[in-house]
Amino acid sequence: MRRRISIFGATGSVGENTVALIEGAGGREMHEVVALTGGRNVARLAEQARALGAQIAVTAHEDALPDLRDALAGSGVEAAAGTAALLEAADRPADWTMSAIVGAAGLAPGYRSLAHGGVLALANKESVVAAGPAVLSEAARRKARIIPVDSEHSAIFQCLAGEPRAAVERIILTASGGPFRTWDAARIARATPAEAAAHPNWEMGQRISVDSASMFNKALEMIEARELFDVSPDQVEVVVHPQSIIHSMVGFADGAVMAHLGPSDMRGAIGYALNWPDRAPLPVERLDLVALARLDFEAPDTHRFPALRLAREALSLGGLAGAALNAAKEVALDHFLARHLPFPAMAAVVEAVLERMNAEDALMTRSPRAAIRLEDALSVDHLARIHAVEAANKLQGTRMNRAENA
Amino acid sequence: MRRRISIFGATGSVGENTVALIEGAGGREMHEVVALTGGRNVARLAEQARALGAQIAVTAHEDALPDLRDALAGSGVEAAAGTAALLEAADRPADWTMSAIVGAAGLAPGYRSLAHGGVLALANKESVVAAGPAVLSEAARRKARIIPVDSEHSAIFQCLAGEPRAAVERIILTASGGPFRTWDAARIARATPAEAAAHPNWEMGQRISVDSASMFNKALEMIEARELFDVSPDQVEVVVHPQSIIHSMVGFADGAVMAHLGPSDMRGAIGYALNWPDRAPLPVERLDLVALARLDFEAPDTHRFPALRLAREALSLGGLAGAALNAAKEVALDHFLARHLPFPAMAAVVEAVLERMNAEDALMTRSPRAAIRLEDALSVDHLARIHAVEAANKLQGTRMNRAENA
Repeated sequence: MRRRISIFGATGSVGENTVALIEGAGGREMHEVVALTGGRNVARLAEQARALGAQIAVTAHEDALPDLRDALAGSGVEAAAGTAALLEAADRPADWTMSAIVGAAGLAPGYRSLAHGGVLALANKESVVAAGPAVLSEAARRKARIIPVDSEHSAIFQCLAGEPRAAVERIILTASGGPFRTWDAARIARATPAEAAAHPNWEMGQRISVDSASMFNKALEMIEARELFDVSPDQVEVVVHPQSIIHSMVGFADGAVMAHLGPSDMRGAIGYALNWPDRAPLPVERLDLVALARLDFEAPDTHRFPALRLAREALSLGGLAGAALNAAKEVALDHFLARHLPFPAMAAVVEAVLERMNAEDALMTRSPRAAIRLEDALSVDHLARIHAVEAANKLQGTRMNRAENA
Repeated sequence: MRRRISIFGATGSVGENTVALIEGAGGREMHEVVALTGGRNVARLAEQARALGAQIAVTAHEDALPDLRDALAGSGVEAAAGTAALLEAADRPADWTMSAIVGAAGLAPGYRSLAHGGVLALANKESVVAAGPAVLSEAARRKARIIPVDSEHSAIFQCLAGEPRAAVERIILTASGGPFRTWDAARIARATPAEAAAHPNWEMGQRISVDSASMFNKALEMIEARELFDVSPDQVEVVVHPQSIIHSMVGFADGAVMAHLGPSDMRGAIGYALNWPDRAPLPVERLDLVALARLDFEAPDTHRFPALRLAREALSLGGLAGAALNAAKEVALDHFLARHLPFPAMAAVVEAVLERMNAEDALMTRSPRAAIRLEDALSVDHLARIHAVEAANKLQGTRMNRAENA
């Protein structure tokens, strides 16, 4: 069966790996590639579109359209640009869609593609963290299948294969603990962006590496797990596992715990989503437990890593608290990377935003989940960013006053 | 749905736990108990049969029939005794049968019950180790489902739930390494039965504990895995994992490894077989990785534990080599427990028997698997025991001569 495939965010690292796996699995001979989308790297986007024989290639940037057109000249691949073109591409029927645009920009294309009722391979975290209630109810309505593409949630998804969902007792997310796992609070308070970006196990971008250091990445994943797997907040556990070999686990009512192990290679999760419910051979490293010799486990420390406590608060608030947490975290991260705020202030910003928006009843915590729309998530995201800037500036002002008074 | 249930070996530890789980799951209100069988403990057998409202209770020992009859007087439960009665009980239609009679005696009742095309919960290792080709082809013919009840194979079975069988790359059996894991060869050579029976993680009978010390238990499990999961011998791996928390694993073609973790409690595997494909709540301890802190892994040492090497030989021979290995091991174990032979001589006996029977072409290694009958397995078992006694006596003679000459 030739599947119709679209890839949103084809030139990023998830997208590139997806394209490579599709090429390895027969490419255009075996797949009907509908749309490929990317950003400023139109040369690469055009190259991918030619190789896979895509119907259309879309760049998010309107000013890049002439370059994309040039690069596609004579290929028969349609070229388009801008937000409207992205959404139009998402509306083109596909059986399998990769949603790998980073950030809030990835939300709408992924959401729209659910209408086809196929598989949505989800690498865009915001779709679930910020807009979980809207996205999950749309998926249910359209009978679309969301297959997560980050390693933890892919692991959980795999642990649930063939299992009775009613018997799920708990989801156990593993966390590497990041580069500050063994640092004391005073040292963490002085951490620089460069120190925070040095992740022990995965090679990732700067932002997600810092999120790993603050454990905000795990906080987002807790919210993601609760949304994707329809469990209650207290069914989501976190255990620190520095080697990141166990990618996550599911505990069942009979005491059995199923775990997914493997090397740290994103092709595992992408390949799983691509081949589900089958598994196809992947040229990834094989697990060698003897070479590893040991796996370690520790309790997470919510004192040094308040992000985990804030995730619990967001989970117990419900509604769109995840959207607020995520957006406030993004702003706080900007301020930390720009050296406007110290490392622990990121959590303080998020906490202030959650408190304020909850006090103002702006998180839709009392709305039925099915009544929450994508637009609501985008509004909460927007408002949380405004509040977060304010909170960050206030914290920065306090620090500068303190410094002046000192 | 009221399922018809029979339990062979109801008064042993697996049987008792099965009875307890069925009682906990509504007992006779929810299940139609057909047959319960036991050995000399007819008082307990009668008690179980009354509690579960069994149709018939069978003791393996004809001389125990009057006592069983007395104990069942007025209960409406039929009483019977002896091998023919056991087989007649196995022929009574049941949807779910527990085969938990220990040793070769458990083979025939389990095999006969496959004819009902239901679930055979298999605790009797011999059924697969000694008679795998016959039992597995009978199960396929009758569309019966075999669900293994030892922790490793139940773990593997659970790892395979919902997975494409063609994508299985390897089965990774975990081994505690037993009480001699850290002993050197010289010390193992002097090991006493009491030392060998001290298993670190599981409370088991003396025989299986010694098998764990020699790693003959793992050798049997390698053969069992190869038979149950229809993989090639080189797809069966063993890794030493002293904490026995990971019960076993399956590696797939995409590099993913699914693992089953849990406390060492046989109710897990029994409950799984009872409730499959569902899972029902079990009052077993929950896994706490933080409390465990670490899991260790080592390569198995075939020099100190030649049983693992012999299992590979039996696997590569195929046919009924498993029957010969198992039977020879039983005899060798008797000699070790009686202090007639030192610990390492057990492997020597098994090796001698395998070599001799293979040289005599007595292992049906060239027969098609489907042509191997239960009777063939029983003949090989019988012959291997005779050869093993001879090999053991010869080794003992050599030792005594050496001692006299010294």
